[in-house]
Amino acid sequence: MKPAPLALELPRTKGATRARTMRAVVKATAGPGAEIREVPVPTCLPCELLLRVLRAGVCGTDLHIFEWDRWSQGRIRPPVTLGHEFVGEVLERGEGVANFSAGDRVSCESHIICNTCLACRTGNGHVCENTRILGVDVNGGFAQYVTVPAANAWRAPSNISIEAAAVMEPLGNAVHTAFAGALSGCNIAVTGCGPIGLFAIGVARAAGAARVFASDVSAYRLELARRMKADAAVDVSKENFVERMRELTLGTGLDGVLEMSGNPQAMRDGLTALRNGGRLSLLGLPKEPFDLDWNRLVIFKGITLHGIIGRRMFDTWYQMDNLLTSGRLDVRPAITHVMPMEKFHEAILLLKNGTAGKVVLVPWGLDQGELP
Amino acid sequence: MKPAPLALELPRTKGATRARTMRAVVKATAGPGAEIREVPVPTCLPCELLLRVLRAGVCGTDLHIFEWDRWSQGRIRPPVTLGHEFVGEVLERGEGVANFSAGDRVSCESHIICNTCLACRTGNGHVCENTRILGVDVNGGFAQYVTVPAANAWRAPSNISIEAAAVMEPLGNAVHTAFAGALSGCNIAVTGCGPIGLFAIGVARAAGAARVFASDVSAYRLELARRMKADAAVDVSKENFVERMRELTLGTGLDGVLEMSGNPQAMRDGLTALRNGGRLSLLGLPKEPFDLDWNRLVIFKGITLHGIIGRRMFDTWYQMDNLLTSGRLDVRPAITHVMPMEKFHEAILLLKNGTAGKVVLVPWGLDQGELP
Amino acid sequence: MKPAPLALELPRTKGATRARTMRAVVKATAGPGAEIREVPVPTCLPCELLLRVLRAGVCGTDLHIFEWDRWSQGRIRPPVTLGHEFVGEVLERGEGVANFSAGDRVSCESHIICNTCLACRTGNGHVCENTRILGVDVNGGFAQYVTVPAANAWRAPSNISIEAAAVMEPLGNAVHTAFAGALSGCNIAVTGCGPIGLFAIGVARAAGAARVFASDVSAYRLELARRMKADAAVDVSKENFVERMRELTLGTGLDGVLEMSGNPQAMRDGLTALRNGGRLSLLGLPKEPFDLDWNRLVIFKGITLHGIIGRRMFDTWYQMDNLLTSGRLDVRPAITHVMPMEKFHEAILLLKNGTAGKVVLVPWGLDQGELP
Amino acid sequence: MKPAPLALELPRTKGATRARTMRAVVKATAGPGAEIREVPVPTCLPCELLLRVLRAGVCGTDLHIFEWDRWSQGRIRPPVTLGHEFVGEVLERGEGVANFSAGDRVSCESHIICNTCLACRTGNGHVCENTRILGVDVNGGFAQYVTVPAANAWRAPSNISIEAAAVMEPLGNAVHTAFAGALSGCNIAVTGCGPIGLFAIGVARAAGAARVFASDVSAYRLELARRMKADAAVDVSKENFVERMRELTLGTGLDGVLEMSGNPQAMRDGLTALRNGGRLSLLGLPKEPFDLDWNRLVIFKGITLHGIIGRRMFDTWYQMDNLLTSGRLDVRPAITHVMPMEKFHEAILLLKNGTAGKVVLVPWGLDQGELP
Repeated sequence: MKPAPLALELPRTKGATRARTMRAVVKATAGPGAEIREVPVPTCLPCELLLRVLRAGVCGTDLHIFEWDRWSQGRIRPPVTLGHEFVGEVLERGEGVANFSAGDRVSCESHIICNTCLACRTGNGHVCENTRILGVDVNGGFAQYVTVPAANAWRAPSNISIEAAAVMEPLGNAVHTAFAGALSGCNIAVTGCGPIGLFAIGVARAAGAARVFASDVSAYRLELARRMKADAAVDVSKENFVERMRELTLGTGLDGVLEMSGNPQAMRDGLTALRNGGRLSLLGLPKEPFDLDWNRLVIFKGITLHGIIGRRMFDTWYQMDNLLTSGRLDVRPAITHVMPMEKFHEAILLLKNGTAGKVVLVPWGLDQGELP
Repeated sequence: MKPAPLALELPRTKGATRARTMRAVVKATAGPGAEIREVPVPTCLPCELLLRVLRAGVCGTDLHIFEWDRWSQGRIRPPVTLGHEFVGEVLERGEGVANFSAGDRVSCESHIICNTCLACRTGNGHVCENTRILGVDVNGGFAQYVTVPAANAWRAPSNISIEAAAVMEPLGNAVHTAFAGALSGCNIAVTGCGPIGLFAIGVARAAGAARVFASDVSAYRLELARRMKADAAVDVSKENFVERMRELTLGTGLDGVLEMSGNPQAMRDGLTALRNGGRLSLLGLPKEPFDLDWNRLVIFKGITLHGIIGRRMFDTWYQMDNLLTSGRLDVRPAITHVMPMEKFHEAILLLKNGTAGKVVLVPWGLDQGELP
Repeated sequence: MKPAPLALELPRTKGATRARTMRAVVKATAGPGAEIREVPVPTCLPCELLLRVLRAGVCGTDLHIFEWDRWSQGRIRPPVTLGHEFVGEVLERGEGVANFSAGDRVSCESHIICNTCLACRTGNGHVCENTRILGVDVNGGFAQYVTVPAANAWRAPSNISIEAAAVMEPLGNAVHTAFAGALSGCNIAVTGCGPIGLFAIGVARAAGAARVFASDVSAYRLELARRMKADAAVDVSKENFVERMRELTLGTGLDGVLEMSGNPQAMRDGLTALRNGGRLSLLGLPKEPFDLDWNRLVIFKGITLHGIIGRRMFDTWYQMDNLLTSGRLDVRPAITHVMPMEKFHEAILLLKNGTAGKVVLVPWGLDQGELP
Repeated sequence: MKPAPLALELPRTKGATRARTMRAVVKATAGPGAEIREVPVPTCLPCELLLRVLRAGVCGTDLHIFEWDRWSQGRIRPPVTLGHEFVGEVLERGEGVANFSAGDRVSCESHIICNTCLACRTGNGHVCENTRILGVDVNGGFAQYVTVPAANAWRAPSNISIEAAAVMEPLGNAVHTAFAGALSGCNIAVTGCGPIGLFAIGVARAAGAARVFASDVSAYRLELARRMKADAAVDVSKENFVERMRELTLGTGLDGVLEMSGNPQAMRDGLTALRNGGRLSLLGLPKEPFDLDWNRLVIFKGITLHGIIGRRMFDTWYQMDNLLTSGRLDVRPAITHVMPMEKFHEAILLLKNGTAGKVVLVPWGLDQGELP
């Protein structure tokens, strides 16, 4: 049913007087770095929601934008407020929005899609040809307030922590990758234990894999993998991945690999360790092109490779919501740091040094302990 | 690689002298009943295995044959030894068998297929047009010894109980039904908590369903459903199934129904409780034809219905093996009785009265406690 | 990219002065019949298109509404302009519509969906829980003008006849049904040769079925089936369907059945004629519930049944467009009558008597020969 | 049903006296070349058929073995009779074979599989871990007689030419590749117009693609592509593939690519020309590893890649048989040469020079015109 248009003015939360400016982490110029600035609070347009940001996750992409890598140089048009992983509280809803109310807590899909291209019109909005991304192409959630299309909002599950709700966007990457092929009763390896890899371990387990193995070169990350209940966590700087997988699958080989590292050797090893007919789903972004022995690793083995981006809109969100609200999936061990958004530069350093799982930021004016 | 033919004579287990006759539960005549008889030990032909039966499960089909229902009258050609669920120890292997050795413990796929029809030649042997079934069309496992085609043998997992290994055939029915559609992250209901329904609860959970609900009219069976960790067990003699499912899924409706009861109302309720686009997989055999409001329950909702029989050969077995050996699936709560095969008639009575989950029989000459 | 809002006023086609009223076929009262009336030209709201109707198809559903059957009594709220199959020329576009321009010719998806339910948000809008249908729940296309949501408009292929463009909605039903399972290289039967059945014959052939067989009881319709190039057209009032299918598939049985008749015997025969593991996709609406021998026809055979409604939005439309514009699919033999909309009652009579394939109506003020 | 064993002696065809030796094309030594030799007629073992070879196709793999490339050096153990594509007439059937009789004409699946590995036991015998190939690992069909496992024989369709029957093995490669993803109503490109590429054009059309485009650098091959009814045949030495595909799909991009060339640029261009979410199925064997811009070509586009080998056993054969016997698929334009097997070296030269489509050989003692 088409919702009746609403009055634009909605009750404010908790009697707060709405400010006209706010603090935000802004990519201000076309070069390395980012700065904390006072910027205007955005205006809520028709079909949009204005959110008070409650928590926001930091992603490797934020690090790339910060460092101003080649991809960023081609894509980012400063100034732009960063942050594409966040949960917020609805303050206002734009004209035409009926399915959310002030006070609702929502996580956000970061891809704003065109709804008119072939991909969008066939249930594949995650590969929309005209995608704009929150915190990349338009202002994002490293701020006190953010506006998002109501179509991108997802009512946050009430029985999970606010930090877990903040990272549903990257968690959705893990769900999308894991769900791209068979999981139930399968032997699955996750190559690369950054935050999405860590999430993927939990997702694969919760979603019915018989065994989930993980690999990385960092002892720190492998310890997190174990906390996410990987059946084995293999340090590939010390052990032979292919041999270990063969042992762990009693000679059968893996049914599936979730490639989260972007590392060429991880992908080659993953393909080698797959059984004939297996699948490798590829989310990790390689730094540059790399070669493959296609005959031996793909063709003769009858392998299926999936390129994965974003989250299925909104199949992935339903699946994720079910796994979270049922308690099957607990992502907390992967969230290693919660810190004030003011310390954004410190968070970036943690990512750069690889001494963190997922880092969650708390905007100005909120205590870390304020929310359930 | 094609195995080299073997000498027919293999070492006997534990120095036992092989008897020429054995005890067995035989459907002796075309009428109600079955009797325990002394019959010849079968001869192991090429491509076959001779097994010492260690444990055998009793199935509703055995009850039907015992009671000589219409289906039995059309199918069974007495005399035949009953029993299509069992685990045994390899005593001899026929000419041409290389992948099993004396002493191996094997569970058995009960469908002996032709390997030449379209179904068989396209990976769908479970719907072979010329299927013969152990314990139905040819002598089965309610005996001290049985021969089976080596192609039907499945090496029993070493880390599960011998009783669990005995019931992999009906457990495979549950796996096949559950795996016929989406499971991971889904809300699934199992309608009917007989042994296969009970197994299906455990399978759906282990294989990644977010929530698994069960329904029945028997308090006894519903209690077993809870022990198999159903998220809710609904007594449909007292509660409205459709309303309960709507509540439990927060208004969304079920993603899938595993129909295990053969009860027309269970199927209609299952279809009603499904969300649009959901699936119902149908294993339970109705006693007779029944009608459906096709428009309202199937067409307008865009439902997919699967008729399920047997086990995918051998996809289902690999999936089941992984779930069992990884410890994700524990079927023990569904096995309520282990008793001597000599008490076959008592076991039949338990099934008839509905006062049992799965009943497992121990052949003559074996103690219940003899095996791990 | 989000389109910039447009000025509401657009150039009128061919210098026509826009009238304030128009003629339309209106279901005026809650009882049998429908009448031709002068009604206001609808106003084009935001996100809508105002179309001059060029051609409109008559559907069995229109007959049901005319006759005021039970389904109509529960659903229709008079007065409403009928007609859910049509092609029109864009006269105006509402605010926010960027991807169509005045003068464009568009066919229309008849389902107006909510975009917020689970089905809509997972690419399954065809089973939206809140669907409203043009010409059923809101005013339709049996009129000189009609407004439709721009999201429902599909640019009509330029190289097909205007009559073919008019019937893309029911043609899409046929595409959806055919594409619900395997087609390529398959032996397919279409049971029921009404207009959608006739379309389905052409679709299955164009989409790669190896052989397409058709059945009906009407010699008239079977002749149309042959013109749609059915490999065989079986008169089930004279021939045994199951035996004929067995012959025509050389004993193998059908791979798929597209059930378009709603006839219980057609469905039972279709299931019987399927090979084990085949699929039956069910679009035809039975008049009332009917029973099935589930064991013999569905479960033991491992059959998959699909309930089909509407068209996948918009996968079906892309597939249909490709088949039409490539010239693989020619639906003209199924369009047996083109007549003035003024003769609506005559068209209804043709449908009632079964002496027509698809009937297409030409609105007032247009010559039949006016358009390419 | 298990067949009763047969007497080994069967009637000889046409009163021919069976010779004890025969002529054959033999890879005699570990180095370049092959020679025509007199060798013993093979003996028909249990479960085998002895065939009189009627026609045999020459494959690029035969050229590789002839030239003794690196792959050959690692795989071939001379002496071995070459030839893995052929049709023959059954002369004798081994013990245990019931479903073929003397006089039957059979095409042959070239992969002899183990039936015991995971792939074999899950309907994926085409990626069996222990595959042996006729004419590669065991003696093949470039000879007057050959023995094959009865399980590898496929009754040749009676209404196709004997040359077409001879090339069902490579035609099956094309069917397998084409059927690995969506075809019906799709826009498909075939990159590389060697014999399998040419077959793939015909297969994709027959199996329901809306449009089939082909690319190559050889004018000769492109002409053959047109004869196979490609909707466009693009000379990529002169035209820009990606631009042409964009034009031909009206800006949408391809739905699928069947990669038959093994050429890195063809694959990169194919991936670029795919729409987001499209699939590329990879049969052509690259000469060596090559790199890919994974991010741009696979991950950001959400592409699915399939490694393809062999033919699904025997799904592919059923599909192929249906397409051939229904007359939907005509492979004759791709068969450019039929010549005596004695001229094997001339055939090899044709392949080397790229001045042939498929070359079919006629064994000694048979006239080219002898058979229908």
